[in-house]
Amino acid sequence: MHAPGRTEAFSDGVFAIAITLLVLDLHVPDARPDLLGALAAQWPHYAAYAVSFLTIGIIWVNHHGFVDRLQRVNRPLLFLNLLFLLFVSVLPFPTSLLSQFLDGPQGPIAAAVYSANMAAMGVAFGAMVGYASRRRGLLAEGAAAALTRGYLVRFAFGSPVYVLAAAVAFVDTRISLALIAGLAVYYALLTPPGRGRGPGE
Amino acid sequence: MHAPGRTEAFSDGVFAIAITLLVLDLHVPDARPDLLGALAAQWPHYAAYAVSFLTIGIIWVNHHGFVDRLQRVNRPLLFLNLLFLLFVSVLPFPTSLLSQFLDGPQGPIAAAVYSANMAAMGVAFGAMVGYASRRRGLLAEGAAAALTRGYLVRFAFGSPVYVLAAAVAFVDTRISLALIAGLAVYYALLTPPGRGRGPGE
Amino acid sequence: MHAPGRTEAFSDGVFAIAITLLVLDLHVPDARPDLLGALAAQWPHYAAYAVSFLTIGIIWVNHHGFVDRLQRVNRPLLFLNLLFLLFVSVLPFPTSLLSQFLDGPQGPIAAAVYSANMAAMGVAFGAMVGYASRRRGLLAEGAAAALTRGYLVRFAFGSPVYVLAAAVAFVDTRISLALIAGLAVYYALLTPPGRGRGPGE
Amino acid sequence: MHAPGRTEAFSDGVFAIAITLLVLDLHVPDARPDLLGALAAQWPHYAAYAVSFLTIGIIWVNHHGFVDRLQRVNRPLLFLNLLFLLFVSVLPFPTSLLSQFLDGPQGPIAAAVYSANMAAMGVAFGAMVGYASRRRGLLAEGAAAALTRGYLVRFAFGSPVYVLAAAVAFVDTRISLALIAGLAVYYALLTPPGRGRGPGE
Repeated sequence: MHAPGRTEAFSDGVFAIAITLLVLDLHVPDARPDLLGALAAQWPHYAAYAVSFLTIGIIWVNHHGFVDRLQRVNRPLLFLNLLFLLFVSVLPFPTSLLSQFLDGPQGPIAAAVYSANMAAMGVAFGAMVGYASRRRGLLAEGAAAALTRGYLVRFAFGSPVYVLAAAVAFVDTRISLALIAGLAVYYALLTPPGRGRGPGE
Repeated sequence: MHAPGRTEAFSDGVFAIAITLLVLDLHVPDARPDLLGALAAQWPHYAAYAVSFLTIGIIWVNHHGFVDRLQRVNRPLLFLNLLFLLFVSVLPFPTSLLSQFLDGPQGPIAAAVYSANMAAMGVAFGAMVGYASRRRGLLAEGAAAALTRGYLVRFAFGSPVYVLAAAVAFVDTRISLALIAGLAVYYALLTPPGRGRGPGE
Repeated sequence: MHAPGRTEAFSDGVFAIAITLLVLDLHVPDARPDLLGALAAQWPHYAAYAVSFLTIGIIWVNHHGFVDRLQRVNRPLLFLNLLFLLFVSVLPFPTSLLSQFLDGPQGPIAAAVYSANMAAMGVAFGAMVGYASRRRGLLAEGAAAALTRGYLVRFAFGSPVYVLAAAVAFVDTRISLALIAGLAVYYALLTPPGRGRGPGE
Repeated sequence: MHAPGRTEAFSDGVFAIAITLLVLDLHVPDARPDLLGALAAQWPHYAAYAVSFLTIGIIWVNHHGFVDRLQRVNRPLLFLNLLFLLFVSVLPFPTSLLSQFLDGPQGPIAAAVYSANMAAMGVAFGAMVGYASRRRGLLAEGAAAALTRGYLVRFAFGSPVYVLAAAVAFVDTRISLALIAGLAVYYALLTPPGRGRGPGE
């Protein structure tokens, strides 16, 4: 058993790096004659950047809320956290994939991969919260029940949206991306689980 | 409500990574016959690197001063901070854009995008400070009034300079970059808001 | 002599960055006609990514367990830690090498380089633990004996597996990678040295 | 005036990222027929990597020793630290330059640029230590005199070696790199200033 301090520091590092590495997908366009047009044509890159940035940011806020209520960390929890961080730190890859293919015929496949990674991130986070809730001595007294219930409601709502986003991609990838962005905004506005007051608390 | 410790750690991580990723815009030149000349021809890259590095550094110092006086962090503040960090972590992209086009006919557009990103960073920082000042219990007692006044004066001065820098870029992009660098140096020498003594305090 | 706090922070930073930089080896494929097939053909990249991610993660957990029991850090230990971090932070390079050549005739050489780097990482970690165990005042009372014994048993087992993985690579590089992955999973399930209870402690 | 905690965290982040970004200069060779030969031909990249890694590591240890004795940080010190970090975080660029040209006719210029950056890093560090020593209330009681003397002796010795390394590069760049590596090892073995005992303290 360890205190959660260093897990927090390591996770924060991975979050901070993954969110900042997203910028490497923004490339300076070559087209010199019309730079403004060339920049504007890159809109899928900016959209994917913003959605991924917002999503990592929200996940960081939720991870923050979860670790805050941890008293202890054991080895299985460290590895569940590691699995979760795997999907966080790989996110620049599906983001890059999506931004490159969003506007073309291969868009649906790129959007499906992107949605699948988002869903996997959510499932890994849920597994971590679920494990910590069922195991005595990890979460602070009283936090377990409210936290589990809160996150379960979210996953029951969030996961089908990611599946829907993957399906909708075969009709229009932009709607798909809008759905994922909308889910991120919805999570951002939501009251954190186990708290009494609204988003402005 | 949370203690500001982890927000500080996460923000510091993003600052440290964004400031260090700037180096990826410095490329080893291919021109083997005259390496020194090839290196010298890259001056816009070094200039943009130095200005962006200095600007992120100063913003970090100001962010430092702001978070130091925070007692509590709530969810809206976390998201305002995230929005602010979005413009910080995207900075390597406009920096790269500016350094590549500074010396050519597309310079004004590149400089305008760069200035706009700087201005957006300032506005997001101002929004965060403004929100924290108006909301009870976030800032330490007595810090709110002095802090808001101090930053408002700065924005009243800084924002028109960025707009001016964007406009001047259509005449000469070098003057534009010099203006942004000058503003950074000016901020660096300024007394931090809410403090009594001079820059050497 | 220093307190171990800052060594921990610096090491965590290097771990977090090295583990996150692995994503830069995942490239968006160019092949537009069949994106799904092009993505599937990249399986060695995903496999190498997962194995390296898992290995860095496990090493981080072990490093965590070791530094937790340190009372003091002296200069030689700082440099042994630095040597160890050298092999951690260089890992994206052999990972990239392995993922690119895994499926071809040069696979064995790539796998041998990869295994050698893993082994070097283990030896450097062992040297650090060994030094700290023999030197009075670095490790907490009573931790030295159990820790040394525990890690020595691991290295006696782990190092030949890496050598075997390098040798097996000349028959089939996939078995080689599976061996390294298996060793990582084995380490993950193992009771940490100097502790009484099983993996679920 | 601030407590030095966050300056330490930010600096550690920059050190950790700069030291880890060095790996981006190691590229997987294309030469498929003879991978081992192609890897061996990259020796200047490994040599430059190792020397830069070791140098950043040692500078981190010294920075560590310096910040440990700081009681307070003021704004000028923050900016001197920022200037110092500029030369740390830019190091991957001259490292890449050196590794690419080390073995060719342009080697001396690359080695001179590399040495100049090392020297600039040293001068900025010296300026920071010097400022902190002369200004009351920044360093802990009694630390100032011993620290300044210790670092002055080092710079009096180190700076001419970097100049010599730059000059020797015009004869043989390998000797030049060996000199810089030797200086790093010498600093590593040296007793830290203001301490009584030897390297094994």
